[in-house]
Amino acid sequence: MTEGPTTEASSRPAATRPVLGQNQYGKAECHVVRVTRDGATHHIKDLVVSVALSGDMEDVHLSGSNANVLTTDATKNTVFAFAKERGIASAEEFGIHLARHFVTSQRAIHRARIRIEEHAWDRIDAPGGDARHSFVRAGRETRTAQITYDGTAWEVISGLKDLVVLNSTGSEFRGFVKDHYTTLEETDDRVLATEVNSRWRYGWTDDARPAPDWDGSWAAVRGHLLHAFADTYSYSLQQTLHAMGGRVVEHRPEIEEIRLSLPNKHHFLVDLAPFGLKNDHEVYYAADRPYGLIEATVLRPGAEPGIPVDLTCL
Amino acid sequence: MTEGPTTEASSRPAATRPVLGQNQYGKAECHVVRVTRDGATHHIKDLVVSVALSGDMEDVHLSGSNANVLTTDATKNTVFAFAKERGIASAEEFGIHLARHFVTSQRAIHRARIRIEEHAWDRIDAPGGDARHSFVRAGRETRTAQITYDGTAWEVISGLKDLVVLNSTGSEFRGFVKDHYTTLEETDDRVLATEVNSRWRYGWTDDARPAPDWDGSWAAVRGHLLHAFADTYSYSLQQTLHAMGGRVVEHRPEIEEIRLSLPNKHHFLVDLAPFGLKNDHEVYYAADRPYGLIEATVLRPGAEPGIPVDLTCL
Amino acid sequence: MTEGPTTEASSRPAATRPVLGQNQYGKAECHVVRVTRDGATHHIKDLVVSVALSGDMEDVHLSGSNANVLTTDATKNTVFAFAKERGIASAEEFGIHLARHFVTSQRAIHRARIRIEEHAWDRIDAPGGDARHSFVRAGRETRTAQITYDGTAWEVISGLKDLVVLNSTGSEFRGFVKDHYTTLEETDDRVLATEVNSRWRYGWTDDARPAPDWDGSWAAVRGHLLHAFADTYSYSLQQTLHAMGGRVVEHRPEIEEIRLSLPNKHHFLVDLAPFGLKNDHEVYYAADRPYGLIEATVLRPGAEPGIPVDLTCL
Amino acid sequence: MTEGPTTEASSRPAATRPVLGQNQYGKAECHVVRVTRDGATHHIKDLVVSVALSGDMEDVHLSGSNANVLTTDATKNTVFAFAKERGIASAEEFGIHLARHFVTSQRAIHRARIRIEEHAWDRIDAPGGDARHSFVRAGRETRTAQITYDGTAWEVISGLKDLVVLNSTGSEFRGFVKDHYTTLEETDDRVLATEVNSRWRYGWTDDARPAPDWDGSWAAVRGHLLHAFADTYSYSLQQTLHAMGGRVVEHRPEIEEIRLSLPNKHHFLVDLAPFGLKNDHEVYYAADRPYGLIEATVLRPGAEPGIPVDLTCL
Repeated sequence: MTEGPTTEASSRPAATRPVLGQNQYGKAECHVVRVTRDGATHHIKDLVVSVALSGDMEDVHLSGSNANVLTTDATKNTVFAFAKERGIASAEEFGIHLARHFVTSQRAIHRARIRIEEHAWDRIDAPGGDARHSFVRAGRETRTAQITYDGTAWEVISGLKDLVVLNSTGSEFRGFVKDHYTTLEETDDRVLATEVNSRWRYGWTDDARPAPDWDGSWAAVRGHLLHAFADTYSYSLQQTLHAMGGRVVEHRPEIEEIRLSLPNKHHFLVDLAPFGLKNDHEVYYAADRPYGLIEATVLRPGAEPGIPVDLTCL
Repeated sequence: MTEGPTTEASSRPAATRPVLGQNQYGKAECHVVRVTRDGATHHIKDLVVSVALSGDMEDVHLSGSNANVLTTDATKNTVFAFAKERGIASAEEFGIHLARHFVTSQRAIHRARIRIEEHAWDRIDAPGGDARHSFVRAGRETRTAQITYDGTAWEVISGLKDLVVLNSTGSEFRGFVKDHYTTLEETDDRVLATEVNSRWRYGWTDDARPAPDWDGSWAAVRGHLLHAFADTYSYSLQQTLHAMGGRVVEHRPEIEEIRLSLPNKHHFLVDLAPFGLKNDHEVYYAADRPYGLIEATVLRPGAEPGIPVDLTCL
Repeated sequence: MTEGPTTEASSRPAATRPVLGQNQYGKAECHVVRVTRDGATHHIKDLVVSVALSGDMEDVHLSGSNANVLTTDATKNTVFAFAKERGIASAEEFGIHLARHFVTSQRAIHRARIRIEEHAWDRIDAPGGDARHSFVRAGRETRTAQITYDGTAWEVISGLKDLVVLNSTGSEFRGFVKDHYTTLEETDDRVLATEVNSRWRYGWTDDARPAPDWDGSWAAVRGHLLHAFADTYSYSLQQTLHAMGGRVVEHRPEIEEIRLSLPNKHHFLVDLAPFGLKNDHEVYYAADRPYGLIEATVLRPGAEPGIPVDLTCL
Repeated sequence: MTEGPTTEASSRPAATRPVLGQNQYGKAECHVVRVTRDGATHHIKDLVVSVALSGDMEDVHLSGSNANVLTTDATKNTVFAFAKERGIASAEEFGIHLARHFVTSQRAIHRARIRIEEHAWDRIDAPGGDARHSFVRAGRETRTAQITYDGTAWEVISGLKDLVVLNSTGSEFRGFVKDHYTTLEETDDRVLATEVNSRWRYGWTDDARPAPDWDGSWAAVRGHLLHAFADTYSYSLQQTLHAMGGRVVEHRPEIEEIRLSLPNKHHFLVDLAPFGLKNDHEVYYAADRPYGLIEATVLRPGAEPGIPVDLTCL
C-alpha cells in the first residue's frame, strides 16, 4: 500500500503531473422539517438541502491535508441550526442565508451552491376538528431551488419537476421530414402528455436590490406553465414548450430565462380492428420507453443563457 | 442440452417427482388510458392492470404443452378491448368484467385475479379557456383494487398507498418496556408521520346482490382515514392505526375488514445545544431508514380475515 | 380532538366494536455492516434487517398503553448489539439469534419474524497490493432470508431476487389457445429472458436437529437455478420455471418447497422490413411493460405449502 | 383556445418577443439487444440509446412547422436498423455511426449527441452443457458513453456509474477546520465507502486519426479506478478521488480528463457502550442520507476541461 499519491506525485516533474480541475464538496440531502407554532395553528416547511462548496482546495486533493476543509458534517449542522436561527421563509431565502454564511465565514471557501427540494403539504380539514397541526403531502411535483454565491453576485435558479399534464385532444403532428427510416404516420388528433421539468433563472443578482417574492413568483410560474399547456393548440411539442416558456418570460419580469425538459409521454392509439372494434380516439396504451425528449431554453431578449443544458441533474 | 424436463421426469417413479403447487400467470402492468368525450368535455380513466389466471395448468408446467394456455398477450389485448367495449366506470367494475370474462370463457381457467392501480387526474382550470380536455396528475397517493373470481364468489379488496400524513403535535410515546437494549427516552410531544398503505375488503361476494358504489366508497374511506389520523390524540402509532381502521369499519357497512401498514417516518428533534440553541420542537431531521413499521387488521365483528398480512405486494 | 378511541369505543356495546386482527410491529431496514479482522485480512457482512413482532398487543391498539411494547428502537439496538455479541455467520443464523431473543426474553412477544437482505462483496485484487480490506459490491442479485419463530418451531425461507438471465435461443412458443382476442403469432425461436425472484423453505424446524449449512445451500440453489435455466430447451416459461424449481427440490434434500416468480422480460424482434432489411433473430427491442408474469411453487412430494403466493413482498 | 403562439407572437414587436435559446430533441432510452451468432456460440450487446439532435429548429418552436423535423420515431428506427446494418462493435463506435448519420444526412441537423448505457452480461457456465447462448447480467455498475458530433469534431465521453467500493480500514480523517457548527470528532480509522460515478473524455476528436480501442480502454480505466481506491491510504475522500483520477490520466494517454463524483457512503461506528459492549471497529450503521458528496475533475497538463460539472445527468 502506498501512503497516498503525494510522494509518488511529487517525485515526477510538475509538467507531467495530473492537474486538479473544477471541484466541490459538501453534504447532500439534509432533510430538515421546520415547525412554526402560531398558537394552535402550526406551519411546516419540509426541505431537502444539499451543500456544495469550492475554493482553495488544492491541498486536500493533492496531499490529503484537511486544514482548509470545513467538514461536510458541519455543513449539515449549519442547515439544521439555521432552520432554528433564521427560520425558513422560503427555499430561496434559506439557501441565500446558507450560501452567504459559508462564503463569508470561511476564508478558503470562495463559492457555495445550495440545492433545495421542497415538499409541499396541505392541511387536513377534519370536519369537527379545531386541530390545526395535521397535514397531508400535496401534489406530485417537487419545487426546486438552486442558489449560488461567489461573494459578489447571486444566481438563483428555481424550478419544479414531475408535474404531469395531459391534453386529450387539441394536438396534431404532421408535415415532418420523411427519411429512409421514417414509418410514423401523420395524425391530426393525438393525446399530448408530458412530465414538466423546468428551471428558471432570476434577474436578481445583487444584494443591494430587493429580492423577488420567491413564493409568489413560483406559484405564478406554475400557473403560467399549466395554462399555456392547456391553452395551446399544439402542432408539435416543441411549439407547446416555447409557448409555455414564452408565457413565463412575458408575464414575469423578474425572470431572465426558463428552460424546459419535456418527455413526450407517448399514448398510442390501440389497434382494435382485429377484434372487430373501432377505436375512435378512445383507448390508448401509455408507453414508458422509449420516449421523445424535447428540451429548450426561452430567454428574455438580451439575456445571457445561464441554465445548464441538462436539467435532470439540477 | 436436454429437450425439457419431461423425459427426465417421467423416467423417475412418481413418488419422488417434484410436485407442482399453486401457480398463476398473466400479463402484468397493462397501462390503459380511456378517454370519453362528452361534447367538448373529456373524461379520462388511467389504469395499470395486471391479470393473473390459474386453473388446469399441469401440462404446461410438466411437459410444456400450451394447449390450455391463453397467452398473456391475449389477456393484454382483452384489457384494451374491454376498455372500448365496456368502458371503465370504476377500477373495481372494470376488474369484475375482466375476471368474469376469463373464468367463464376459458374452460381451463378456474380463477382470475385482476390487480389495478389507478392514477387520478384533475382538470387544469385555465382562466380564459373553454377547453375541457386538459388535465394534471393529482395527489401523491395511488388507488388500488384487486378483484378475484373463481366462478362462484367475488372478492374485492380496494385500497390506497403512498398517502403521506403528519401531525406536528398531539402525539406522545411513554410507558413502554425498558429491556437491556432500550435507550429511547420517553416523550410527551413528538411529530407523528406516516405513509398510509391500506387495503379493505368488501362484503359483496355475490353477483345476485347489488355491488357497492365503488368510487363513492373509496372516497369516503380516504376521508375517514385522514380524519381519524388528524383527530386522534396519539399514545402510540398502533393506537392511531386502530382508530383509523375502526372508523372505517364503523362508518362503512359495505366493508368487512381493513388492513393498514404504517411506516413510522421518524422525525428526530435535532440537538442544537452544541450551537447554543434551544430546540423547542421546531427543527426536525426526517430520517429514511430504519423506520418503525406498524401493521394490523381491523375487522367487523364476526368477519373472517381475508386480506394478506403483507400489503406491500398487493 | 378526542383523547384516542378508547373512551369512544368503550361506550359502545362490545358486539359492535371493531375487532383487532393480525398485527405486528418492529423496526424495518436496519442496515448493519460487520467487519471481522483476521490479521490484515478483513471480512465483511452487509445486511439490511427488518424485525416484526407480534403477541399480546391488544392494549396498545385499543387504549394506547405501551406496557407490553418493546420499542422498535430497542429492536434496532438489538440488531447492532447482536452483530457484536454473536457475530454474523450467515443471514439465517443471525436471524435465528434475533428471533429467539425476542420471543424468549419478552413475555408479551409470542412470535418474531426477521427479514434480511444481504449485499454481497468481492475483494478488489489490486495487482501489487497486499491489502486485504478492499471490496467491491458483487452481482446484481440480492440474497434474502426470512426467519420466523413462535417459541416452538422455526420456519426459514431463503431466497434471491433480481437475478437477470437470458437465453438467446432454445425457446419456442406454440400450440397455445387462440381466442377472440388472440393476435400473437407462434414462434419457434425467441429470446427468453427473466429476472429470477425465488424463495425456498427449509425442512429444518426443530432446534434439536442440526441446522443446514445456510451459505452452502444458498450457493448451491443459485447454481441449480442458473443451470436449469441454461440447460432447458423451453416450450414455455412455465415449463422452464418447473424445471428450475424441480431441480432444486431434487438435488437439495434440505429444501421442502421453492416458489419462483418469473417476469417474462419480452424481447420483441424488430420489424426491419420497412428499411429493406431482414431481421434474422439479430435485433430485439427489450420492452419494460407490460410483461408476462409466471409464478408457481414446486414441492417435495408430501410437503405442505408454506411460502406465500406473493413473493414481491418477501 | 388560441391556435398556437404564432399569431400572438408575431403581433408583438420583435424586440420584446421571448427568444429561443439552446434546444435539442430526440428519442430517449431505446433499449436494443443485438444477438450475433458465431455458430452455436452467441454474443449479445445490450444498450439503452438516447438521441438528441439540434440545428435549424426555430420554425418548429415558433410556428409549429415540422418541415425541418426528423421525427423522434425515425431516430428510434435508425437505432434498431443500424444495429442490424452496422452491428454493435462497442457502445462508442455505435454512437459514432449514429451521430454521423444524423448530422450528414439531414441538412437541418447540425449536431447530434448520442448517450448510451450498456448492460453487461456473463455467460452461464452450465456444467455438462455445450450451450453457448445462456447469459446472466453481470455486475452492479453500468457502462456509459456519450458521443457528440457537429459535422467537424468528435467528443467522446465514456464512463461508469454505480460501482460500489469499500475499504474497511486504511482511512483517517483529521486536522480539519473547526467552526462554530463543527461537532465531528477526528478519527484515525474509519470505513471509507463510495459509489463511483465517473466520466472521462478522450483526446480523439478527428475522424482522420485512428480511434482508441474503446472496450480495452474502458476495462483498463475501471481497473485503475478500483486499484487506486484499494491502494491509497486515505487522509480524505478528496485525496482518494485525486489518486483515482490521477492514475487514469497517467496510465491512459488516450484520455484527456476524468471527472469523479463520489458520495461518501457513511458507515458510522455504533455506540454499543449502553449495552456494556466495546465496538472495536466491528459494527457499523450504513446511513443513506445525508451523505457527503465529493466531486472533482483531474486533467492531463494542458488539457481544456470539457466534462460537465454535474455527472448525475450524463
